Amino acid sequence: MYIKKQRLLTPGPTPLLPAALHAMMGSDIHHRTEDFRKLYKQVLLDLGEVLGTSNDVLVLVASGTGGLEASVQNFFSPGDEVLVCSAGKFGERWVELTKAYGLKPTVLSASYGEAVQPEAVEQALAKIKNIKGVFVQASETSTGSQHDVEAMGRAVKKTNAIFVVDAITGVGTMPLDIDAWGLDVVIGGSQKSFMIPPGLAFLSISEKAWSLASSSSEPRYYFDLKKEKKNAASGESGWTPNTSLLLAFAEALKYIKTLGMDKLVANAQLLAKATREAVRELGLELFSSAPGSSVTAVRAPAGVDSGVIVKEFRQRFNAIITNGQGTMKGQIFRLAHLGYFDFHDLFAVIAELEIILAAQGLPVRFGCGVAAVQNVYAEVALSKEAALA
Amino acid sequence: MYIKKQRLLTPGPTPLLPAALHAMMGSDIHHRTEDFRKLYKQVLLDLGEVLGTSNDVLVLVASGTGGLEASVQNFFSPGDEVLVCSAGKFGERWVELTKAYGLKPTVLSASYGEAVQPEAVEQALAKIKNIKGVFVQASETSTGSQHDVEAMGRAVKKTNAIFVVDAITGVGTMPLDIDAWGLDVVIGGSQKSFMIPPGLAFLSISEKAWSLASSSSEPRYYFDLKKEKKNAASGESGWTPNTSLLLAFAEALKYIKTLGMDKLVANAQLLAKATREAVRELGLELFSSAPGSSVTAVRAPAGVDSGVIVKEFRQRFNAIITNGQGTMKGQIFRLAHLGYFDFHDLFAVIAELEIILAAQGLPVRFGCGVAAVQNVYAEVALSKEAALA
Repeated sequence: MYIKKQRLLTPGPTPLLPAALHAMMGSDIHHRTEDFRKLYKQVLLDLGEVLGTSNDVLVLVASGTGGLEASVQNFFSPGDEVLVCSAGKFGERWVELTKAYGLKPTVLSASYGEAVQPEAVEQALAKIKNIKGVFVQASETSTGSQHDVEAMGRAVKKTNAIFVVDAITGVGTMPLDIDAWGLDVVIGGSQKSFMIPPGLAFLSISEKAWSLASSSSEPRYYFDLKKEKKNAASGESGWTPNTSLLLAFAEALKYIKTLGMDKLVANAQLLAKATREAVRELGLELFSSAPGSSVTAVRAPAGVDSGVIVKEFRQRFNAIITNGQGTMKGQIFRLAHLGYFDFHDLFAVIAELEIILAAQGLPVRFGCGVAAVQNVYAEVALSKEAALA
Repeated sequence: MYIKKQRLLTPGPTPLLPAALHAMMGSDIHHRTEDFRKLYKQVLLDLGEVLGTSNDVLVLVASGTGGLEASVQNFFSPGDEVLVCSAGKFGERWVELTKAYGLKPTVLSASYGEAVQPEAVEQALAKIKNIKGVFVQASETSTGSQHDVEAMGRAVKKTNAIFVVDAITGVGTMPLDIDAWGLDVVIGGSQKSFMIPPGLAFLSISEKAWSLASSSSEPRYYFDLKKEKKNAASGESGWTPNTSLLLAFAEALKYIKTLGMDKLVANAQLLAKATREAVRELGLELFSSAPGSSVTAVRAPAGVDSGVIVKEFRQRFNAIITNGQGTMKGQIFRLAHLGYFDFHDLFAVIAELEIILAAQGLPVRFGCGVAAVQNVYAEVALSKEAALA
């Protein structure tokens, strides 16, 4: 094979929206001008609309973890009792982060590939006094699992605790009714369903969360959300903003508004479903018992290191997919669906996976995984007569 | 289907090389500066190297047809006897163009889907006195056919005629030994195998052709090749050059030099072969009896207008392919391979074609065309053991 176009097919950064990429070229604007203020206000307005929330929405110059840190710094104090749902590498990040700021996390663990059950949250809230916050990943990218944040939100709502949801790969891959479900702080990042490069984090913040902010005694300076909120009201950013990414974000939000957030979610869900069907058809196993739609984690076949599959995707097809993280490295590989992915991508990726499995000496009938994807497409988009022909 | 990325899969313009596209952003240079002269000289040098010729190479601000016109204007005079090989819409363009300048073309025709045989050229050269030039398409894009320009070149070489080869889609899709085969004037365009947008034509010109230039009495001004040659020697262009496209061209030439022109040709040939296999597997017929590798022309199945297939590619998958031209419209659709195409593209395109055929009510076993493409890949890139597993 001679020409191999590089294709980024990971759960973040994700494939870029061309219009957004091109908009970055217009970044020779100054951030203390009316031009910028107009842009920034529009981004905040559109982001709130796309997220479907009437809570405040703020944008930070940081990657997603900066947004997570801001949620710990601004609403809590050292010694606060909190619950952390941990079902993967990102759950463990909540544990590290809450400890770093002196909070006292009670960890509700699920094994890698499982999800923490909402009942466990409800029981812990009943048992432990004075829980100030509950932390969770809507979508646990490291294992391809998702949490039932609706049910968890119902439990948290009844208490004085706030519900802090890392939705970095959850936004755009699952329904999230922020206001109705009581998701008090929701954190997202630019390089996921929003189809632009890394560099921006954002948060939506409920009144219940803001009410905790006044008593928070954690040290903070760069991620001072009250200050950001005050500035944002007049279209200003607290510190120098990332203008090129905001220009890109504005384009991406325009695209998502036109497409519809529900369609963006349905797109990821349908591609995830088709991927699961293809994987089963190829005799492989899913890693997660509660699979989400941001990324599908697949167990490598017996005797094959998943790193070999990742490497083969790169070497044979210049396609970049991801290995497992931590102890899952070598065990699973992950195919992403969040953001700017379509069926065209998936047809090719599954055809490539078939070739890679064959190259490992596994018995593969070429085209059978692709046919599984085609059948999912046909169910949704071909008339009954055509599908039966 | 919710997200559908637009994909340009036509035989020109072709998919763009990202590095070349990005280079266009640097086009705020002035063309009468040392910066420009350095760029222009490098482009001409690299273009000659990539074409594998020691003939002069010139670049014009024009699309391909401008290059064709320049070849008629600069080397001929009204009343000159010429031979035109015509096997499609582009052959007919040679007829129109030579007539527009008062040449007297004897047309060697082949039906659409056939190729003009080299023997016909040899016989006509023997029969008709004073032939000054022989015109042909190396690759006839309208029918997906190619001509045996090596054998034709052998015949023309023995005479005083010059051999003028429209290689707009021939360069990069078939071996062309310009110097050894006596291809006196070879015309190419930027938006084909060179992976950049339309706007540049180029020509290579042999000594034999230049010797005719001095006696040419056709009117010309913008496309004055002697003037361009004189300017090019010092890195100047005769008229205002297209700086953004030249910056892109420089990047594309760098890419092709690194890849190797032979590999670029092999890439198109392999994708064309895989496409032919897939098409046969799907029970469809090729249009050409002498298929080339720039584009594969496929007969629409009985009772289906090929325009419907083209439209379905756009509506269902936002993929742009081409219909037949002229009287072939409605009869054939064309899948391109020239330039920046890879197996990933082809896996997806064939999976999409299968769905489109099914949507027309045709019996299609999903995945069987894709498997044909995978088998061609496997033959070349999988070890025997793996392929047999």
